[in-house]
Amino acid sequence: MSGAPGGAGVEVLCIGTELLLGNIVNGNARWLAEQLAALGVVHHRQQVVGDNRERLIEAVRQAAGRCQVLVTTGGLGPTPDDLTTEAIAAAFGAELVEHGEIWAAIQARITARGRIVAPSNRKQALLPRGAAVLPNPTGTAPGMIWTPLPGFTVLTFPGVPSELRAMWEATAAPWLREAGLAGGVFASRMLRFWGVAESDLAERVHDLLALENPTVAPYAGAGEVKLRVTARAGDAAAAAALLAPVEEELRRRTGTSCFGADGDSLASVVLAALRRRGETLAVAESCTGGGLGAALVAVPGASEVFLGGVIAYANAVKRDLLGVPAELLEAHGAVSDPVAEAMAAGARRLTGATWAVAVTGIAGPAGGTAGKPVGLVHIAVAGPDGCRSEAVRFGSGRERGWIQTLTVGESLNRLRLRLNTGAI
Amino acid sequence: MSGAPGGAGVEVLCIGTELLLGNIVNGNARWLAEQLAALGVVHHRQQVVGDNRERLIEAVRQAAGRCQVLVTTGGLGPTPDDLTTEAIAAAFGAELVEHGEIWAAIQARITARGRIVAPSNRKQALLPRGAAVLPNPTGTAPGMIWTPLPGFTVLTFPGVPSELRAMWEATAAPWLREAGLAGGVFASRMLRFWGVAESDLAERVHDLLALENPTVAPYAGAGEVKLRVTARAGDAAAAAALLAPVEEELRRRTGTSCFGADGDSLASVVLAALRRRGETLAVAESCTGGGLGAALVAVPGASEVFLGGVIAYANAVKRDLLGVPAELLEAHGAVSDPVAEAMAAGARRLTGATWAVAVTGIAGPAGGTAGKPVGLVHIAVAGPDGCRSEAVRFGSGRERGWIQTLTVGESLNRLRLRLNTGAI
Repeated sequence: MSGAPGGAGVEVLCIGTELLLGNIVNGNARWLAEQLAALGVVHHRQQVVGDNRERLIEAVRQAAGRCQVLVTTGGLGPTPDDLTTEAIAAAFGAELVEHGEIWAAIQARITARGRIVAPSNRKQALLPRGAAVLPNPTGTAPGMIWTPLPGFTVLTFPGVPSELRAMWEATAAPWLREAGLAGGVFASRMLRFWGVAESDLAERVHDLLALENPTVAPYAGAGEVKLRVTARAGDAAAAAALLAPVEEELRRRTGTSCFGADGDSLASVVLAALRRRGETLAVAESCTGGGLGAALVAVPGASEVFLGGVIAYANAVKRDLLGVPAELLEAHGAVSDPVAEAMAAGARRLTGATWAVAVTGIAGPAGGTAGKPVGLVHIAVAGPDGCRSEAVRFGSGRERGWIQTLTVGESLNRLRLRLNTGAI
Repeated sequence: MSGAPGGAGVEVLCIGTELLLGNIVNGNARWLAEQLAALGVVHHRQQVVGDNRERLIEAVRQAAGRCQVLVTTGGLGPTPDDLTTEAIAAAFGAELVEHGEIWAAIQARITARGRIVAPSNRKQALLPRGAAVLPNPTGTAPGMIWTPLPGFTVLTFPGVPSELRAMWEATAAPWLREAGLAGGVFASRMLRFWGVAESDLAERVHDLLALENPTVAPYAGAGEVKLRVTARAGDAAAAAALLAPVEEELRRRTGTSCFGADGDSLASVVLAALRRRGETLAVAESCTGGGLGAALVAVPGASEVFLGGVIAYANAVKRDLLGVPAELLEAHGAVSDPVAEAMAAGARRLTGATWAVAVTGIAGPAGGTAGKPVGLVHIAVAGPDGCRSEAVRFGSGRERGWIQTLTVGESLNRLRLRLNTGAI
């Protein structure tokens, strides 16, 4: 990154009271962040302020002291609460001047839609003296590119996502490249893990977490843990070459707990493995009530492998539909290995599937006992080589939804490991 | 808002390089904004910084000069890039001290899950001297409440949304109220709708959307539309009295499309109605693969009403398990009213449930034809008074997951209306 008086890289400033009220999620900030990362532009900070002149001026002035380029979204419309252009001009004591060609284009566009031009639209033709128009091919409000101070440029965009995107791709992205802000090319890989805690994983790879290029960063989700590897280089091939050995080393150290990368899910990985083997899958679900099946059919093309199964929430359904012997239910209770095994065997028998996964557990908040607390789940995997159930305890402090989500992931992971290793 | 040396209101600081890389959308910022708005707390600014000590310290110091309360999310984990607590302490030159009770709780929680305690977990027990613990009932990392300067308090939360939400509701929201930051007393009601477009709903109540107290604001979700009514007054009774007539008028104008309020879901409303009637429910799912059952069992206590059912993803399962005649499948195709009706009848017969809901459709992206495009779903409701299926078209441009989610909602809504009206 070339040095600048103000600072380095790009900041994003999203303007709109609706964001501060939580009426909408800030999808523009995420989209811009992705674009900047793909361009290899340094991006250290995002801000959100409301439609307030004073705070807008303060935010713009602070950014001018920190970064080379400020990208703003929102506040370019014709209504009184659209203050962006005016506030940015005021931040640097610049006068607003009307651009005749913008005003003509605004009138033509509004008239073409059969609408009446309002006097308030005229303010959209005003830009600070010295600013260039950033054309908006799909809406009325253009943006601007303005360098009010040496080494500091502001780019303004509307808040409407489709307009922002079209303008970004047509004008801003090429401009950032030409301005020399795009620092090479990034290659990135998200490795996905199940059955390992974030802290365990971090310890196993702690020396790699300290790398500077590529960087390795851990993320925790609902049961899943992820490591993102990001390499930066002059071109795509060089970035990929930097990334590859680190990915290989991470996979070597983490073994089978790494189930996939990027867009993979446990369900997609299991379905792909079964598709390769020409085998099919069924489920028998108690505490997840269908969540395991739903995770499988979330994957496009699941129908080649997944046949269906039984939601056996009530014990009578376990008995009558899945054929779980009443004696087993009586002797061991519905949440037990023998019942899970009988459920899996029943699903396999009923559907003719090669494999079946069964889950039975206590999702809570009620129904737990000292011996069988909330969070206790028995998971069985039945296949051509036999059937085996094991218990897992997700912790009685967990919420119902969390236990159900973890049960789905854990049961898919057990099937994955069974398919990998062949061990029952 | 009472004056403070530093400034007014609450700022939100979200910490995580994944946000600046655009890996995830900042849902926490939106959720917090909604909560602050509902509490009537002044909220002028949100920021995002990465896992960088220097920039974190700078952001915290700047916030201290501008606001009364800084809410942070993220960076509380055990890994080296989790810097939030340390950086906040450093921003005010405070020493970190270990809290023995946190460390004991972390160890107990990890051990209870059958995992090994890593030395890196110990850093999660460190807080700046003088800070109080903000308990995290569902995860390992607690947050803190700390007042490093007169008139400026920091509240830290993990980035995992479920943990943030549980901690916010249990601790932060009451704290903000007690601290006098909530502007007066708010009474709020979220009315929930299904089967009506946001724009239609807004037209029907457009005059009420212009009210100032209570305010009425529309929100759109996945199929569901919501209206939030918020009244502000000196005390709870006065706020409730302001709210009630507006809620009544909204319900009067929107009729049966309003299915509930606040924490209700379509599933919880249907289950409650069946519980009152002493009746039971089963499902037969093709394109949703278990998603309908999963939505039902997401509701605690579902087992009193929901018995289970069949996931009939493959046609053979529809035929062999649900007893859908092969001739019907051949003559009409799996995605048809006769098949949906036979599936519902089969689920009812197999489980003995009073009611059964069946869905069969084309979730895409493949499998659509001109006559049966992606997004076409047939939904049948079978009960003591008969069985009826109808088609719905969600649009072929929709994503698979969206179609599955809408199918779940639409099928629950049809059962709800059937129970309400008694009409087949």
